[in-house]
Amino acid sequence: MGTVYLVGAGPGAPDLLTLRAAEILKRAEVVFHDALVHPQTLELAALAEKIAVGKRSGRHSTAQKFINKRLVDAARDHEVVVRLKGGDPTIFGRAQEEIDALRGAGITFEIVPGVTAATATAAELGVSLTRRGFARHVVFVTPRTAAGERENDWAASVLAADTAVIYMGAGLAETISAELIRRGKRRDTPLALVESASLPERRVLPGTLADLPELARRAGLGPTVVLLGEVLRAVLAESTATSIKEIEAFLKHA
Amino acid sequence: MGTVYLVGAGPGAPDLLTLRAAEILKRAEVVFHDALVHPQTLELAALAEKIAVGKRSGRHSTAQKFINKRLVDAARDHEVVVRLKGGDPTIFGRAQEEIDALRGAGITFEIVPGVTAATATAAELGVSLTRRGFARHVVFVTPRTAAGERENDWAASVLAADTAVIYMGAGLAETISAELIRRGKRRDTPLALVESASLPERRVLPGTLADLPELARRAGLGPTVVLLGEVLRAVLAESTATSIKEIEAFLKHA
Repeated sequence: MGTVYLVGAGPGAPDLLTLRAAEILKRAEVVFHDALVHPQTLELAALAEKIAVGKRSGRHSTAQKFINKRLVDAARDHEVVVRLKGGDPTIFGRAQEEIDALRGAGITFEIVPGVTAATATAAELGVSLTRRGFARHVVFVTPRTAAGERENDWAASVLAADTAVIYMGAGLAETISAELIRRGKRRDTPLALVESASLPERRVLPGTLADLPELARRAGLGPTVVLLGEVLRAVLAESTATSIKEIEAFLKHA
Repeated sequence: MGTVYLVGAGPGAPDLLTLRAAEILKRAEVVFHDALVHPQTLELAALAEKIAVGKRSGRHSTAQKFINKRLVDAARDHEVVVRLKGGDPTIFGRAQEEIDALRGAGITFEIVPGVTAATATAAELGVSLTRRGFARHVVFVTPRTAAGERENDWAASVLAADTAVIYMGAGLAETISAELIRRGKRRDTPLALVESASLPERRVLPGTLADLPELARRAGLGPTVVLLGEVLRAVLAESTATSIKEIEAFLKHA
């Protein structure tokens, strides 16, 4: 019986993988990977059979139960099985369903943490998600609910936190903006919608909470996160740039 | 004029560094590092002068303003200057003060994100911080306030979030437990205090919110995080272990 490694591939750029993840990929015999994992990251698994089971493959995503079963079966035939997930496996990665299946089948597993999109995005914007004397909590949240899920009061968690990072929110931009404003969040709360963080095709769309629906309309098809909070105000306000290119140049340099 | 890289060293284990961080350390001419950064991580910076400016050095920590000035001065004399911080620079890393100083002095800088303690701890516990149909938000929070800081309602953010990870909280365990219970959080909310996550000397102290003061008394001097929320219930309840070693063995394997 082998070991299944649930490995975080990081936010996108292949060099934001951890050394541990790279070492495990080199030894992997099978890799089940999300569709968005970078090709250069997959190349590290030179010996492995690579199987896309990914969400967002454009066509369909493999049912979670079927992924769980394949992981268990693979651990019966191989020493080193990798489940490679975008970002960090413990943040919106549906890792728990796979963990439960592996525990239930008596398979040894190990989780390798990764850089999550929120901090990679903050790094690119040159802004800290927390700030001494200013922001002492940051929430990572998704407004998406699963079928049959209990009420998800995502908005309450955003309202209570100094800084919020919204994952998988671009498609719900109208709802997010309207609901937060209705419940008392300032319309001019600084916000940035960032698409394809850490990749060359990255786009930064800065604005305010009231602008979010318009920003989402301008975004493309890449994965997005929305950063929201006063920590962004200084960096956005200082910019007198009018184009995205200029804003990016400003954000990157002093 | 050189570039200053604000680099996340990850949660503790040297192989939880990113490939990008390792590559920058190899080119570094000067490294200003926190006291808790692993010696093997520092060894990667073979060419660099290494200067501890760290918090928690046991004796004193260098004043933040002095660190800011040294970074600016170093960038005037060197091509590649690294400020190496535990975890991720944008999460409780006081990066913003250094960013502001660098921007003010016209120094080019870049932030390299890292694995933060929260997800490394979740990985070791074998538990996801979010869980489809169950936990759709996770807050990272510290109850510590700086001198002159506005009121920090850390408790409100914990109460509103499905899962909470409390950084730098062990010394305030009595306050955390009492305040959350007073404001309606269940006494039996599952909790784990984890010390020295990702290192060989790691300790996991599982319990409930009511137990937190006792768990904190049993913890040592290493850095701690407290995980709190229903996502932990299954994994802790399934354990019939009575010693920490047994709990760890249970958490690690099925």
